[in-house]
Amino acid sequence: MPDADATPPAAAPRRGRPGYDQQTVLNMAVDVFNRHGYEATSMGILAENLGLSKSAIYHHVPSKGDLLRLALDHALDGLEAVLDDPQASTGAADARLEFVLRGTIEVLTQRLPFVTLLLRLRGNTEIERNALTRRREFDHRVADLVDAARREGSVRRDIDPRTTTRLLFGTINSIVEWYRPGGPLPADKLADNIITMVFDGLHTRGTSGS
Amino acid sequence: MPDADATPPAAAPRRGRPGYDQQTVLNMAVDVFNRHGYEATSMGILAENLGLSKSAIYHHVPSKGDLLRLALDHALDGLEAVLDDPQASTGAADARLEFVLRGTIEVLTQRLPFVTLLLRLRGNTEIERNALTRRREFDHRVADLVDAARREGSVRRDIDPRTTTRLLFGTINSIVEWYRPGGPLPADKLADNIITMVFDGLHTRGTSGS
Repeated sequence: MPDADATPPAAAPRRGRPGYDQQTVLNMAVDVFNRHGYEATSMGILAENLGLSKSAIYHHVPSKGDLLRLALDHALDGLEAVLDDPQASTGAADARLEFVLRGTIEVLTQRLPFVTLLLRLRGNTEIERNALTRRREFDHRVADLVDAARREGSVRRDIDPRTTTRLLFGTINSIVEWYRPGGPLPADKLADNIITMVFDGLHTRGTSGS
Repeated sequence: MPDADATPPAAAPRRGRPGYDQQTVLNMAVDVFNRHGYEATSMGILAENLGLSKSAIYHHVPSKGDLLRLALDHALDGLEAVLDDPQASTGAADARLEFVLRGTIEVLTQRLPFVTLLLRLRGNTEIERNALTRRREFDHRVADLVDAARREGSVRRDIDPRTTTRLLFGTINSIVEWYRPGGPLPADKLADNIITMVFDGLHTRGTSGS
């Protein structure tokens, strides 16, 4: 598994107020963005929610856009690390695909608010569009793996590869809407459940015959 | 299949500007809400996007909230009609579950912008919270069907029922993020693909053994 710890990447550390470093401000900002939407969140709303003055926030980051960029980098760096892991490029396509899906689920659960923000982007600013380009590139690389698994004969061909990839991501990405880390369902059990459903199906007859 | 045509419910028809009736205003408003987020959309932004004055919009509906309520009713009425169809309550649980999932997919594809709006609600207003309550009730009724199919032995028991239901909705609801009605993938083919993946799985071994 790639390193997917929950610590966001900090730019040059800028410490100011006691109890608040850039990372704390970033974590809190991501929560506010997810609650109200990035566009609807002004620096004023952000300051109010963080219990800071606007100038205290500007001490940590130059702009609202920089908070967004740092947050999206944290999500995308994690996802890209999964594909860059040697296990994503050696062995049977089917096993590589499963490795990448499990790794993606792990990043989602460990960096949940950051990936949530990424998935809800509307693409109305340059920073958002850049992140969406990286996300599309990630999707294309996974689609190539799906293609390889189909050619290998391990993944069914009666669903077209584009739809297969979209349904896989749809299923996985939807966990940001309901999964709560630290709740009753451990992340590795969630990954097992998703891998079971998408590859073997929910019907009991699907497994009894194998 | 329930009647799920694409015409939203109109309140008492109030005609004003030539070329704009309440329905047209509603369709356009839903697109703007989906593009910018409901909270970020002021009546001013709405008027600008619709090419109308604010007072012309007020001629059609008393407030932004009423547009939201009408739009959410259209999405929820369609979904609830699926569960109220006799085919959702007679026969084997497995067949009833498949009927409901197919019906849900049909409503999603036919009322796509309306369901998109519903799925993106943040619950920050009373109208949003009422809609979320109806959505949860719908989810619970489908969860009961999943339970029945498990008890019947047709749906696997090694994934807990709550997670099963969430993954099913996750997969289905994710189509609002990418599916385009009128594109290369017909809605009934999409439904077939989803039903195949969630029940039989993507692995070829899942089907060869049945």
